[in-house]
Amino acid sequence: MHFSIPPIAIVPGLQSRIDGKTKPPGSLGQLERLALQIGQVQQSLTPSLDHPHLLVFAGDHGAARAGVSAYPQEVTWQMVENFLAGGAAINVFARHNGLQLQVIDAGVAHDFGAREGLVDAKIALGTRNYLEQAAMTPPERDAALARGAAIARDLADRGCRVIGFGEMGIGNTAAASLLTHLLTGTPLVDCVGRGTGLDDAGLTRKQALLAQAVHRAALPADTDALTVLAEFGGFEIAMMTGAMLAAAERGMLLLIDGFIVTSALLVAARIAPAIGDYCVFCHRSAETGHLAQLRALQAEPLLDLGLRLGEGTGAALAWPLVRAAAAFLNEMASFESAGVSEQV
Amino acid sequence: MHFSIPPIAIVPGLQSRIDGKTKPPGSLGQLERLALQIGQVQQSLTPSLDHPHLLVFAGDHGAARAGVSAYPQEVTWQMVENFLAGGAAINVFARHNGLQLQVIDAGVAHDFGAREGLVDAKIALGTRNYLEQAAMTPPERDAALARGAAIARDLADRGCRVIGFGEMGIGNTAAASLLTHLLTGTPLVDCVGRGTGLDDAGLTRKQALLAQAVHRAALPADTDALTVLAEFGGFEIAMMTGAMLAAAERGMLLLIDGFIVTSALLVAARIAPAIGDYCVFCHRSAETGHLAQLRALQAEPLLDLGLRLGEGTGAALAWPLVRAAAAFLNEMASFESAGVSEQV
Repeated sequence: MHFSIPPIAIVPGLQSRIDGKTKPPGSLGQLERLALQIGQVQQSLTPSLDHPHLLVFAGDHGAARAGVSAYPQEVTWQMVENFLAGGAAINVFARHNGLQLQVIDAGVAHDFGAREGLVDAKIALGTRNYLEQAAMTPPERDAALARGAAIARDLADRGCRVIGFGEMGIGNTAAASLLTHLLTGTPLVDCVGRGTGLDDAGLTRKQALLAQAVHRAALPADTDALTVLAEFGGFEIAMMTGAMLAAAERGMLLLIDGFIVTSALLVAARIAPAIGDYCVFCHRSAETGHLAQLRALQAEPLLDLGLRLGEGTGAALAWPLVRAAAAFLNEMASFESAGVSEQV
Repeated sequence: MHFSIPPIAIVPGLQSRIDGKTKPPGSLGQLERLALQIGQVQQSLTPSLDHPHLLVFAGDHGAARAGVSAYPQEVTWQMVENFLAGGAAINVFARHNGLQLQVIDAGVAHDFGAREGLVDAKIALGTRNYLEQAAMTPPERDAALARGAAIARDLADRGCRVIGFGEMGIGNTAAASLLTHLLTGTPLVDCVGRGTGLDDAGLTRKQALLAQAVHRAALPADTDALTVLAEFGGFEIAMMTGAMLAAAERGMLLLIDGFIVTSALLVAARIAPAIGDYCVFCHRSAETGHLAQLRALQAEPLLDLGLRLGEGTGAALAWPLVRAAAAFLNEMASFESAGVSEQV
């Protein structure tokens, strides 16, 4: 699997275009750095963020039944139904903020039949239990990566320039904890959080189970990211990894949500380290392990609202800021054009 | 001048309505506290944020010519022209985020004539130089407060439920520094920042000039807020204070921008301490003195993007988060209505 993702390069005139807008230089703070990044991703002085999409990848985890979540496994498919009915948080936020929502069944343990609004990309009815064996086979993993890449390429072909990533899957904070531990070298205990809301006893149990899983797999320290992904990942995570790689290869901007989405990015960044240049880190999650991920990726998120819902809600909530960064670059007057005096 | 602004009260059933939405309890973090606040401000389980407005109050400062800003005074009217032409940052952000922009001449040192899109509420052609005398007379101050209150009441009468506050005025970070020093008791040096971009020498000069102004006025320690406002304020600041008080009295939600806007709120909070209950603190400004203001008001802002532009840009950028908080409360399904299992 190869993706050609070059580091983003300087665009001549872009910084001076930002500085020439009618505002004190630097006074839009992080939005100015974001405008620079967007221009560089598109290699343009006038970037466009047309047809923004928010993709929610859903999948189930064999380990969920072992007690790593505060919610029962059927909540995954019940929440997919909620997405299709328009009643979840991500529906509300995508609707209000102008993002086209697409829900993808990457591997939910439920037969939805053919359903309008649901992309059937099911690899299997959930992963295997990584407490006993690898979560997925290498062919299953590769199928998930390829399907994700195909989804992103199809959107690029239809003019989409921005993809926000979201997910649903009971047990997927546990999978993300394992990926984060193994791909960043952060102690496991600092990668495991309360997920949807475990109490102290539940958190202790989750930590113990995940330590067992690490012990069971006994991966060497230099194990490649794709092997780690197959061992502990979810189909929704693998499919996001593939979609991220293809999206960056096509010069799209990636809106990175919280802990689960960033675990998919950790895998992608091992395959193509420059992918981080294409990413907007949308928020700082309240989930414990997100901090280790952000450090590993040297990321500075836009929002810090104590969110820990997933679904891509952090990406959807940060999207208006991203849109605003491109908009000031494209639409603001310059000191010259507006006849405003510059600093004395 | 009296405003009846009661503390916001509990709305029976509101917290359980928030908790019953299809998400782990608390997982929307600060947005959940915001939804609770909005419901309490409107005393409603289904608050509406109709007809949101962003008001930009502009005024000039006599002290600006003494060298407290990096920009010449004429930039105030030039930027008002830029607002009217749609080319400023606040135009772009208000347009993209669905806020109706209204520009108010509270006291710019320039004759605009009758202009479409500009509310003529001019008190005078700028304030007097507070290095020599009080910036405004008590009647001027009261006229500014009354005019601001009238503007807010008129919007309330037309169905507006949310006002975002913004401002323009070369020299107004200096005025805000003085108000902050005198109304919070924070040492002057911690209230004075670089404004639009003073260098080290400029900052030292600004600090010295403002210390002179404090010395000249020689106000007793227990001076009331309205006297402080007349001594050092700007017409745009006084008019915002009046508008804030009337808006809160009418049960509107107030979107508080950065350093200048918060200085107006400090005055309002002395007159009606419960006004803070009606305020959303939109962002943490990079301007030095904002920290002291936020501490005094025990405020926890939504955004922290290193903004220091003013114009209400922080309020306009945070508005989609406020809208999202009300929207999840009004539009999300509950566990019961969506048939989703709750925590085990």
